[in-house]
Amino acid sequence: MSSTTTRYAEIEIGVHASACIGRLNAHYCSAIDNGELEQWPTFFTDDCTYRILTRADFEAGRDFGIWFCNTRGMLLDRVSSIRSVNVFEPHVYRHVISPTEVVGVDEDGVIRCETSYMVVRTGYEGTMVVFSAGRYVDAVMIEGGRALLRERTVVTDSCRYDTLVALPL
Amino acid sequence: MSSTTTRYAEIEIGVHASACIGRLNAHYCSAIDNGELEQWPTFFTDDCTYRILTRADFEAGRDFGIWFCNTRGMLLDRVSSIRSVNVFEPHVYRHVISPTEVVGVDEDGVIRCETSYMVVRTGYEGTMVVFSAGRYVDAVMIEGGRALLRERTVVTDSCRYDTLVALPL
Amino acid sequence: MSSTTTRYAEIEIGVHASACIGRLNAHYCSAIDNGELEQWPTFFTDDCTYRILTRADFEAGRDFGIWFCNTRGMLLDRVSSIRSVNVFEPHVYRHVISPTEVVGVDEDGVIRCETSYMVVRTGYEGTMVVFSAGRYVDAVMIEGGRALLRERTVVTDSCRYDTLVALPL
Repeated sequence: MSSTTTRYAEIEIGVHASACIGRLNAHYCSAIDNGELEQWPTFFTDDCTYRILTRADFEAGRDFGIWFCNTRGMLLDRVSSIRSVNVFEPHVYRHVISPTEVVGVDEDGVIRCETSYMVVRTGYEGTMVVFSAGRYVDAVMIEGGRALLRERTVVTDSCRYDTLVALPL
Repeated sequence: MSSTTTRYAEIEIGVHASACIGRLNAHYCSAIDNGELEQWPTFFTDDCTYRILTRADFEAGRDFGIWFCNTRGMLLDRVSSIRSVNVFEPHVYRHVISPTEVVGVDEDGVIRCETSYMVVRTGYEGTMVVFSAGRYVDAVMIEGGRALLRERTVVTDSCRYDTLVALPL
Repeated sequence: MSSTTTRYAEIEIGVHASACIGRLNAHYCSAIDNGELEQWPTFFTDDCTYRILTRADFEAGRDFGIWFCNTRGMLLDRVSSIRSVNVFEPHVYRHVISPTEVVGVDEDGVIRCETSYMVVRTGYEGTMVVFSAGRYVDAVMIEGGRALLRERTVVTDSCRYDTLVALPL
């Protein structure tokens, strides 16, 4: 969080901004879970950061985890490579997320918010496991009635990078 | 989704409709989870559709899954039979749902929305398992300050119909 | 629920109260999950009740479960003892909660609401289990633009008190 972030207690973002962020997060998760992965890059600004970090790495201030993208083009590349490699999807994800917590507003209007998530992975034969739990640590811009991610850091509670992260979280 | 559905980007349902849908989903889940199953049919319009479909069946456009009810009377029958068969409830459900995503509004005002869910089943001895994960695909009407389900399709991520679906999802 | 509670159907709490309760619940969970346990007592009024009860004990009207605190001072004591005993945290919690359901408003303005939760516990080696599922049964006051808990009863779906409840739920 930048030094100019206004902290929690004073925060009152409007109903509209709140609804935009709610839509963003709902759509983000459903795109991944329901097989519309091509939508995923559209939730970010052109100049953006997406990364997955373990809690330990995040708290230590490290920047690089299992995923690191810092342009929308890199996100598009990821989607292409996922699509070309995985002809047949062996399992599906289901995100369930808590209501989003706004933790700050920067001077330039960027909204800092966090959302807890769980992902259940269902295998082809129907086995279900909690695949990942953690939180999104986000910087969001509201533009033209729509919320876009300038930064999304997925902070996983687990200290291990699961090598099977085939899809974005 | 019907051909007259307005797609995502243009959607702005009001704060009131949004609050009604939020109440509907919260109450729907708590009625099932907290032993007030008699409430369950009251969340639907008289002429309604409730069904549980696997993701594979849903995507193939099939209509019949493990549950299929198309009047509120059939929902009431289900509740009666559950109540008469299960004197002692061997396990309980807990739904946790994401915030609802509005995906469209039909010309007649019916709101199309989707909500991701997870259900944890807790057995009598305290064992907890993720029993089902998936999403609700709904058609909702707002009437007299209240949201009612005209259609709810429970789309399960698992491809198998668990024969132990004793309660509605 | 007290005898003067207004029941569900008539309820329409305002957008502001609703937003305050949303912030309370999001912040409550993130404080526990993200290592800011010192924040936890600040979500309660001075004169408050916090308890964890199994569903069976709650339905039988019993008052005492594994946790029982009835002043904010007792909450502070709990935090101190947790901090002094657990130098190294062997596992972390992640709450994911549903949108909150308002079930009543008392004559004095206290809002009765319930929120379903799941907690996933992640161990040091990365193992994840559903640790608890259930609901919060709350009495909330809105004071100075902020929601505070006068009562929070955590009702667990499991009938067993897990002796490892090291953190509040």
